[in-house]
Amino acid sequence: MTTTYAVREAGGPVTALDVEQPPLGPLEVDVRVTHCGICHTDLGMIDNEFGISTFPLVAGHEAVGVVSALGDAVPPGHLHVGQRVGVGAIAGSCFACEWCLSGRQSMCPQKDDTVLRGTGGGFARTVRAGDWRHVHVIPDEIASVDAGPLLCAGTTVFAPLVRHDVKPTDRVAVVGVGGLGHLAIQFLAAWGCHVTAVSTTEAKAADARELGANDFVTSAGDGLDRVASTFDFVLSTVSANLPWDRYLATVRPRGVLCSVGIVDEPISFHPINLLPAERSVAGGVVGSLMVTRQMLGFAARHGIRPRTEVFPVERIDEALDHVRRGKPRYRAVLEF
Amino acid sequence: MTTTYAVREAGGPVTALDVEQPPLGPLEVDVRVTHCGICHTDLGMIDNEFGISTFPLVAGHEAVGVVSALGDAVPPGHLHVGQRVGVGAIAGSCFACEWCLSGRQSMCPQKDDTVLRGTGGGFARTVRAGDWRHVHVIPDEIASVDAGPLLCAGTTVFAPLVRHDVKPTDRVAVVGVGGLGHLAIQFLAAWGCHVTAVSTTEAKAADARELGANDFVTSAGDGLDRVASTFDFVLSTVSANLPWDRYLATVRPRGVLCSVGIVDEPISFHPINLLPAERSVAGGVVGSLMVTRQMLGFAARHGIRPRTEVFPVERIDEALDHVRRGKPRYRAVLEF
Repeated sequence: MTTTYAVREAGGPVTALDVEQPPLGPLEVDVRVTHCGICHTDLGMIDNEFGISTFPLVAGHEAVGVVSALGDAVPPGHLHVGQRVGVGAIAGSCFACEWCLSGRQSMCPQKDDTVLRGTGGGFARTVRAGDWRHVHVIPDEIASVDAGPLLCAGTTVFAPLVRHDVKPTDRVAVVGVGGLGHLAIQFLAAWGCHVTAVSTTEAKAADARELGANDFVTSAGDGLDRVASTFDFVLSTVSANLPWDRYLATVRPRGVLCSVGIVDEPISFHPINLLPAERSVAGGVVGSLMVTRQMLGFAARHGIRPRTEVFPVERIDEALDHVRRGKPRYRAVLEF
Repeated sequence: MTTTYAVREAGGPVTALDVEQPPLGPLEVDVRVTHCGICHTDLGMIDNEFGISTFPLVAGHEAVGVVSALGDAVPPGHLHVGQRVGVGAIAGSCFACEWCLSGRQSMCPQKDDTVLRGTGGGFARTVRAGDWRHVHVIPDEIASVDAGPLLCAGTTVFAPLVRHDVKPTDRVAVVGVGGLGHLAIQFLAAWGCHVTAVSTTEAKAADARELGANDFVTSAGDGLDRVASTFDFVLSTVSANLPWDRYLATVRPRGVLCSVGIVDEPISFHPINLLPAERSVAGGVVGSLMVTRQMLGFAARHGIRPRTEVFPVERIDEALDHVRRGKPRYRAVLEF
């Protein structure tokens, strides 16, 4: 029996719901949750925005806590009861398909979405991972309250740096100074890059610089025109339909515009912005296992932490509403 | 004095026009043209479709012939009068900007478009290159009639294989079996890939297989659905506005859809086809100097040749019309 914070129908309110957990599977791991970050995607799942939610639904995929039980087949020497760990957006995968076998578990067609599996996500006293290999050990340097947002937001912005081979000599831009963007700025600054933060509003300029940005541009007015063809890599972290041509025009020849923000309208740009300069447009999601592990080590080593606003789980409704209104500076975390 | 085949106004007819060449610049090279391929872009320039044409305009950027004169400052040991060479889409660049200095001359902001420079392109008895380093030595194995189309169409489809690191173990698709596509199929087959040709019509199936395609798919009906998520790399060679989402859906996770066809409407796709599978969409143009040299060597070694229809230059109007109607199987070449 564990207490979850569930919604019973799309868009419904969160209510405490005690559920009986089935027996622990041989590779599964139970984690007693101490903290869980709130991601904008949690609201999408609660609202069934993506059409894949099942109800009652327990959201939460930035869960951090301590191991409370290990399945029989979890090999010794990796995890132990009482150990501080995290469960991110993916709680299991098949470890047999071509994607798992080539280290790209986030592409596994049978991957186990933390929020969609039977026992639900991290808005609960206990979260269950489908496979112990998807349970992340949290480095000692990272406090539990900070670890959750790294597991989803952090790995989502970190993975593209690896995948697109961003170099420390590159000039990069981070579009959006929010839950994802404020981490991306820190990662890219520690990566050695010249970092420009782009925001709709000048209000974020001071924060962006504090986080490590060398430069700040507002997307209003002619801000983007002044940085035309200047970035080797542009990481868009906003869940908004952007004037893509204007952003693509800021990319240097052969550079990449990568979007990790979930937008709901077609991404469209004129061929003249793509072909002659041989630019690329790419999409990204959360990182795979080893990339997430690298990200945690990198964050620990460089002091990269989310800026959080902490809510006791009893105020989960208020916290969700805060996220819905885009208010957190910069990530809301539930504390159990 | 040289005879050119010029158009005097946008969309006008081609007429022979004798022009006085200015004195040969120190780094320039004159090439007596024996053959010149006709690219669809030549028609775009003649029609001023891109808004950059200047008239009278001498098109032609797949010129092959023999060196007839070398500028004073061309260092010895590289080119000699009488040598068989080619001049492609780019006839010069600054060799001083960051792009030239990093081997990406096709991105040089001051690059010298063969067709736009004062003395005009390869539809002429003599074509002049602005810099000897942009004059390509034709390997002995490649006949002059075949070399022209390699210099533009060939390098345009070859460069993306290098740039996107296509691997011999990859499954790839070539969209369009035409002037560019029929070369791309040959390059990718020799590259070691599993090659699927995609065409609107079953009529190209036999040719595609002869050129080296392992498989053939028609884009009509459910043809593309049957190859969903199967290609590591898709090279679109058609100058047509495609249903991009349908093509992007054929790309495997983390794969690339690269378009080298010049299209005139926005390229648009739904984020759901980009983000979860971390796909990329890229654009490409002609290759830089070393890539073109590699391409010529690769083509020579593997017997990769365009299929050409040869027109004596006196029938240039007929040849241009043939190209305009998309008739060549697969590349029209003028013979002088």
